[in-house]
Amino acid sequence: MSNQQRNMHLEAARYLLFLGDVTEPGYAKTAFGLRDWATDRCLGELRLEGATVSTGLSTLSPEEAAARGATALVIGVAAPGGGIPIHWVPALVAALEAGLDIVSGMHVSLSDIGALVVTAARTGGRLINVRIPPSDIPIASGLRRSGRRILTVGTDCALGKKYAALAISRGLQQRGIDAEFRATGQTGIMLSGSGIPIDAVVSDFVAGAAELLSPAANPDHIDVIEGQGSLFHPAYAGVSLGLLHGSQPDMFIVCHAPQRQHLLGFPTIPVPSLEAVIAQTTVLGRVTNPAIRCVGIALNTGGMSQEAADAEITALAARLPFPVSDPLRGGPSFERLLDACVA
Amino acid sequence: MSNQQRNMHLEAARYLLFLGDVTEPGYAKTAFGLRDWATDRCLGELRLEGATVSTGLSTLSPEEAAARGATALVIGVAAPGGGIPIHWVPALVAALEAGLDIVSGMHVSLSDIGALVVTAARTGGRLINVRIPPSDIPIASGLRRSGRRILTVGTDCALGKKYAALAISRGLQQRGIDAEFRATGQTGIMLSGSGIPIDAVVSDFVAGAAELLSPAANPDHIDVIEGQGSLFHPAYAGVSLGLLHGSQPDMFIVCHAPQRQHLLGFPTIPVPSLEAVIAQTTVLGRVTNPAIRCVGIALNTGGMSQEAADAEITALAARLPFPVSDPLRGGPSFERLLDACVA
Repeated sequence: MSNQQRNMHLEAARYLLFLGDVTEPGYAKTAFGLRDWATDRCLGELRLEGATVSTGLSTLSPEEAAARGATALVIGVAAPGGGIPIHWVPALVAALEAGLDIVSGMHVSLSDIGALVVTAARTGGRLINVRIPPSDIPIASGLRRSGRRILTVGTDCALGKKYAALAISRGLQQRGIDAEFRATGQTGIMLSGSGIPIDAVVSDFVAGAAELLSPAANPDHIDVIEGQGSLFHPAYAGVSLGLLHGSQPDMFIVCHAPQRQHLLGFPTIPVPSLEAVIAQTTVLGRVTNPAIRCVGIALNTGGMSQEAADAEITALAARLPFPVSDPLRGGPSFERLLDACVA
Repeated sequence: MSNQQRNMHLEAARYLLFLGDVTEPGYAKTAFGLRDWATDRCLGELRLEGATVSTGLSTLSPEEAAARGATALVIGVAAPGGGIPIHWVPALVAALEAGLDIVSGMHVSLSDIGALVVTAARTGGRLINVRIPPSDIPIASGLRRSGRRILTVGTDCALGKKYAALAISRGLQQRGIDAEFRATGQTGIMLSGSGIPIDAVVSDFVAGAAELLSPAANPDHIDVIEGQGSLFHPAYAGVSLGLLHGSQPDMFIVCHAPQRQHLLGFPTIPVPSLEAVIAQTTVLGRVTNPAIRCVGIALNTGGMSQEAADAEITALAARLPFPVSDPLRGGPSFERLLDACVA
């Protein structure tokens, strides 16, 4: 299947969200992202015994989902390392038997699982791997290209870089600005029907992939690029830095979850300060764009009351010389963040 | 072929160095590295029309090399992107016909080239790909491990990080210290018979690969880890940062070529200052090792007179609070650099 064919299938897909036996909400990012940003294309969820996380959608069997118009089961969870546990396979086989495709954003290819290949060949179901990057990525050139770019960076993984980029690109579009969301992860690719899974690219080519992802554009066009990881993350910082260099952003927005004390899955490592992330992103980003600058902070205040969120936003806005907002709560602070993106 | 089998073949190999039609000495790192660090295992060189770079070894045909005891032709050049040009293939086929194996450090696999597969099947020659990483690399844990580690970092690519690591590991061994060179690139792997080609690892797993490369060891053991790229390189910085985080070095040595004004292959991008590289390496390295510190500067003074090299070393040593030495010239300054590694 070509990338173009894959993207057509993704744009038209209607999903049954598969959650496996997940117990950590942070690992169900794909299911939540599809529920929140492609709401009308998500028909229900399917969980295995032991799962404690839910999207709140109706529980459907593959047959029920197919009867309601679903075209694919999407694996909505991602454990560290990106594998597909063997005890998930019967549910995936059942989905194929019900006439669904399987969409996966895991590092392993669905085609490496014999039971899926054999069943799909019989049912005609498609095995769609969203996390397999194109094979013809060049080494980064480092050369500047036209158009403007905003990158969302973060103090950790899984705290709102994709949501912030989606909200900002939509907000800019609603102002009549020629803005586009650029997906760098599996969920974003499922949502937008295009993009490059940057963390699956061979490391020598990461910056080159980021250059491909956001090509030269009209001077007024703004690409809003989904960030990955964090420059201070012990496992993924290399991905973040390659993406920063290849994106050559004119502007960046730091995403932060004020309630998180330690990196997700790394209980001994504290979350870095916003000031440290701003300083490092600026210094390292200057390698490919000397004019790079921070234009705002996107707070993830999920789980906080409106009062607590407002207090956090006000306190940070007093501490830092940038607009601070939770893009999902919107309001005047979000308008100021959008103002900064077009100033 | 298992990694262990591959490493056995590499340790026993005697080489004909293939230079293709290379015109940029910086791209012939593998040939020079083998000539300089595995001198007694390099029997001659083979070049194509148009080549202007030479190792200085005798020109030998594959038949002549085989007659003198060569066991393999090694591709001694690497163009950006890591491909094998189609016009090199006849020479590689001829080497197989002469009874040699082919050893490659390119990103593409030799097994992707039909003419080589067919010929090797007939001659019994082996196609040995050094730049294919192991398939079972975990995500980095970020957890500290025992033993000490030195990482060579750089102000650019291709300016002496491997040579410095080799010289320092040999120098420490000559002092009776339990030190080991850890290869992260194709040439280092060919030399040492083990290691991981870090730039060929999928970006999500780079730091994990660096953790694998240099496992827990006795408290007095020192791993001297070959660095890659530069934190300020527009294409490869992500590789450098993942390697830094996974290596968790206690000490780092900055490698620098004083005569280089711009990054190799990037004529518009100046080489960063030693101070900037030291500062960034320290700040970012603290994520996984809070005690990280710079212990010295390894200058590549190749092409300079002894007087000019001495003057450069003296000037830098006055500017920076670290020992400064060209490890290949040795002498008292190199002994001071080794002293700092064991202080």
